Amino acid sequence: MTIRGTLRAGLVQIRVLDLEKAVIHYTERLGLDEVCRTSDGRVLLKAYDEFDHHSIVLRQAHEAGMDLIGLKVENDAFLTELEQKTKEFGLKYESIPANSDQPGFGRRLAVSLPTGHRLDLYAEVAIAEDHPGVKNPDIWQKEPHGMGVLNFDHALLYGPNTKLAAQYLTEVVGMSKVEVVKGPDGESDLATWLTCNNKAHDIALLEHEQPGKLHHIGFKLESWTEIGHAADLISIHDIALDAGPMRHGVTRGQTIYFFDPSGNRNEVYAGGYAHFPDMPLRVWDFDHVGKGVFYYTRALNERFLNVVT
Amino acid sequence: MTIRGTLRAGLVQIRVLDLEKAVIHYTERLGLDEVCRTSDGRVLLKAYDEFDHHSIVLRQAHEAGMDLIGLKVENDAFLTELEQKTKEFGLKYESIPANSDQPGFGRRLAVSLPTGHRLDLYAEVAIAEDHPGVKNPDIWQKEPHGMGVLNFDHALLYGPNTKLAAQYLTEVVGMSKVEVVKGPDGESDLATWLTCNNKAHDIALLEHEQPGKLHHIGFKLESWTEIGHAADLISIHDIALDAGPMRHGVTRGQTIYFFDPSGNRNEVYAGGYAHFPDMPLRVWDFDHVGKGVFYYTRALNERFLNVVT
Amino acid sequence: MTIRGTLRAGLVQIRVLDLEKAVIHYTERLGLDEVCRTSDGRVLLKAYDEFDHHSIVLRQAHEAGMDLIGLKVENDAFLTELEQKTKEFGLKYESIPANSDQPGFGRRLAVSLPTGHRLDLYAEVAIAEDHPGVKNPDIWQKEPHGMGVLNFDHALLYGPNTKLAAQYLTEVVGMSKVEVVKGPDGESDLATWLTCNNKAHDIALLEHEQPGKLHHIGFKLESWTEIGHAADLISIHDIALDAGPMRHGVTRGQTIYFFDPSGNRNEVYAGGYAHFPDMPLRVWDFDHVGKGVFYYTRALNERFLNVVT
Amino acid sequence: MTIRGTLRAGLVQIRVLDLEKAVIHYTERLGLDEVCRTSDGRVLLKAYDEFDHHSIVLRQAHEAGMDLIGLKVENDAFLTELEQKTKEFGLKYESIPANSDQPGFGRRLAVSLPTGHRLDLYAEVAIAEDHPGVKNPDIWQKEPHGMGVLNFDHALLYGPNTKLAAQYLTEVVGMSKVEVVKGPDGESDLATWLTCNNKAHDIALLEHEQPGKLHHIGFKLESWTEIGHAADLISIHDIALDAGPMRHGVTRGQTIYFFDPSGNRNEVYAGGYAHFPDMPLRVWDFDHVGKGVFYYTRALNERFLNVVT
Repeated sequence: MTIRGTLRAGLVQIRVLDLEKAVIHYTERLGLDEVCRTSDGRVLLKAYDEFDHHSIVLRQAHEAGMDLIGLKVENDAFLTELEQKTKEFGLKYESIPANSDQPGFGRRLAVSLPTGHRLDLYAEVAIAEDHPGVKNPDIWQKEPHGMGVLNFDHALLYGPNTKLAAQYLTEVVGMSKVEVVKGPDGESDLATWLTCNNKAHDIALLEHEQPGKLHHIGFKLESWTEIGHAADLISIHDIALDAGPMRHGVTRGQTIYFFDPSGNRNEVYAGGYAHFPDMPLRVWDFDHVGKGVFYYTRALNERFLNVVT
Repeated sequence: MTIRGTLRAGLVQIRVLDLEKAVIHYTERLGLDEVCRTSDGRVLLKAYDEFDHHSIVLRQAHEAGMDLIGLKVENDAFLTELEQKTKEFGLKYESIPANSDQPGFGRRLAVSLPTGHRLDLYAEVAIAEDHPGVKNPDIWQKEPHGMGVLNFDHALLYGPNTKLAAQYLTEVVGMSKVEVVKGPDGESDLATWLTCNNKAHDIALLEHEQPGKLHHIGFKLESWTEIGHAADLISIHDIALDAGPMRHGVTRGQTIYFFDPSGNRNEVYAGGYAHFPDMPLRVWDFDHVGKGVFYYTRALNERFLNVVT
Repeated sequence: MTIRGTLRAGLVQIRVLDLEKAVIHYTERLGLDEVCRTSDGRVLLKAYDEFDHHSIVLRQAHEAGMDLIGLKVENDAFLTELEQKTKEFGLKYESIPANSDQPGFGRRLAVSLPTGHRLDLYAEVAIAEDHPGVKNPDIWQKEPHGMGVLNFDHALLYGPNTKLAAQYLTEVVGMSKVEVVKGPDGESDLATWLTCNNKAHDIALLEHEQPGKLHHIGFKLESWTEIGHAADLISIHDIALDAGPMRHGVTRGQTIYFFDPSGNRNEVYAGGYAHFPDMPLRVWDFDHVGKGVFYYTRALNERFLNVVT
Repeated sequence: MTIRGTLRAGLVQIRVLDLEKAVIHYTERLGLDEVCRTSDGRVLLKAYDEFDHHSIVLRQAHEAGMDLIGLKVENDAFLTELEQKTKEFGLKYESIPANSDQPGFGRRLAVSLPTGHRLDLYAEVAIAEDHPGVKNPDIWQKEPHGMGVLNFDHALLYGPNTKLAAQYLTEVVGMSKVEVVKGPDGESDLATWLTCNNKAHDIALLEHEQPGKLHHIGFKLESWTEIGHAADLISIHDIALDAGPMRHGVTRGQTIYFFDPSGNRNEVYAGGYAHFPDMPLRVWDFDHVGKGVFYYTRALNERFLNVVT
């Protein structure tokens, strides 16, 4: 295979204030399916087009936010290689044994990113019981429900030292830098979009004084029509809308943003271009960031910029 | 970057019986743009979402069909590595110097596949003048026209020895086997879908007695809505329809097939899943091939099966 | 109001061979809701965007087909006027008292059309309990399911004497002739599309030797995207596909045809133009009928032409 | 025919500050076609799915706004009837001879509405040279361009005495009241949607102290996908966006609002329900108006409420 090393963002653990409200939101509204619950009460979820055991974990907590984001890698040998390189790069990490807090997952390296986020790297995941099918498969095994999200796609992380984090994610983890928004100085990168594959991003970073903050987790939809359907569901079910339906200039994705019942921001999006590593970096000047993010209104609003969990 | 080695299908040269009719078909109908013409009268075309100098070449000839399909690789070092491995695998190849018959292209290895097709491997391509844009880019530089194809996507090749060809493409070139259709014996692979990236396929192979045959070249569209629009254009402009609008079971793509004025089959398609190398192989039994290919009618027709160029 | 006299096709009673299979088909697949069942075992259904008590009735019988189609008119005074004019025109009719065999319906005139079909004319219908909502209404009261049909739209009837039937429906009932397909003689109308409103048709007629035959009943969908979704459901649930997804030249509608478990043909369609009575008649020559009906393949198939119930 | 009396909104004359900029906006962006220009320099336009000679007129002026809106009626006899009833109702009107200021149009009654707007009623219009086609017609005669608007659809008018105007339009002109937004008192109608046909509205009225103001003119698009495409064109061509892409609760239409170069508000919209005169009135309480108009954000903005021309 030619997608090597690090494959994709495949795991995220989210803190929620009311677990049952969160389960209803992520299952009935977004369309994820509950896989199982852990002995410590966390709820494991997956999207219908994913083969891995689970991708989203909900944890009851006193504060919303993200516990960790995970990147799946090619194999255990590459994971060992990453451990060595991470040590050399100088980032702290912890080794998490297989089948401990993430059922179905093999051993993980829990790396402390300089942005204050925890990044879990892992190679082995058990195949989900409820997967897309491999033997004369129908296009779905049970009809998508709610917004019908296909898979967990990416996260936008807010924190300090994004330059160093981006250096680690490109030089060590092997991600590609796809787009950047320049700061007012025209030199530094205010925001950076990074991918492991043809997606426009698996992880995006935005420079921010508070460490370890989550701007949003993103899920994939089929097309603009499904974005409109998501918007209808958001209004009918009194979900807190943040922005959209709209398009991004960055990634060209069609999108809508909203909040889960705990205030964690969600995105469902569709379209956007297919990235390849031989494509040039796409660069946005600071004074074009409005159009880059909100392609239609061309003006960012305070809430979108500054509300994070 | 983690898309390594071989990146994607990026070049195809097609034989046409009437060059000017072909140019109208591929530019005004499919929506490609003419880049330039060569001294020997070939026409170079590209799609609006491609960065490379050109992707489609039309050559006037007495017989329709495909001269060559090209795969772009990571860099020249990998190309050198491929040359050595190709030699070891035992396939004949020719070295084509840079900027010879394909303007803007670096050196190529022209490998003779056991199926009778010519596969060109190359690392360097000049960036197109008319590309998607990288500095505060709008979502398109000029409005897509005709069917509005985004890029050249893949080809389905008919020929003998597909097992050996697939072995070369996976073991040497590094492609992933995504789906297969089993033959009546339940053992051999009648058809094989191979990819270098997240696409469901860059090259597909179908076992056939005649060597070097082309079933179709495929182009990407945004969504099912654009498939419908393509169908309207096909009828209005008296283009010979082959099959669709429909969906494939294999790849899950939404699609329509038609013929260029020389009888070469074209496909425009949208949707389908994103492939990752950790996904299990999807397998179709011979008696399910109808549903696998024609997901709605569930029955292949003779023309689709046997008309090739 | 300026939509006067006859409003729309609002009722159809269908004969089915297996009632429970039919109920599953029309509710879970098409997305109709069951309203209630009658003492004689018929099942009353409605679509989510309809205000009237019910629109579709399923009756268990030994032979598939249509018992009656109904047109709703402006008010009882107009119904009285129609009774007089029908008598003068010379068609037989029966008076059906209110709340007899169609719960929630006022008195009806059951007119015997010269094509051998029964046409029920009625003015009063009780409002459905489960209607779209009128007080700060959400866009739907419960989320559309299955194919999500919006409403019963029209029927295509096969029978003799369509010229006389069309004369009655235009001169007495007040429908507009929207499109016609000419017979081989270039004079007679082989097929006629008739409407009471902005729809392209409420009733269409095709000249056929057997009286009282049903070609299909049609339901409305939102857009081409929903046609594609319907096609997916047809394949997944092993529903017998007839033709499509495709477009009609006549009406310009985007459409797919399939059979209910008893062999009655269904259509779900979207789009098409808005008809107004000041628009000229659209005429199709006999040798263009293929394109008129199957806009993409441009060729009618025997099954579509001749299989009726 | 059963659409009787008054058929639809079919004509609007708009004042623009820069004629050539306006022509580019309405032809290249919205996709209307220029029919001809008058001796006094006005530009006549039509949409590709309209049969009438023209529907939109642009007039160079020092102030933006609307000169007149026109309703097409069934025939001259009904126009004569309307003249008598208008006199009895007590509204001033002028008789405009055929082929005077509106080429291709028969005689008109120019009625002075109590809201300060001019309403032209007319029965005869020459058929456009460039119409949708009636003989074995393709789905379009030339491919839709720009946003691809199908037809002029409706206008929202701001002015005083909307109650009296609505009384005239229903009792005399014969329009149906489809939806209303109640004022803070819960009694009066703050806004009223009126139709002549299956559309949700041909004319809407909003109570406002200044007479004769235009909120927007609306055009029809095929579906939500075309709304998204319109949004892309708005951003790429630096058109002043007002609101959307979004959905209305009122009419259920999917929509986007923007301004022409002179500041006149345009709407392109799709979807929405089909109205019939036997449907109950849909009523919005004053405190639900936000959701009624901006179904997603549920909050009206000042600009949308108060910027009129």
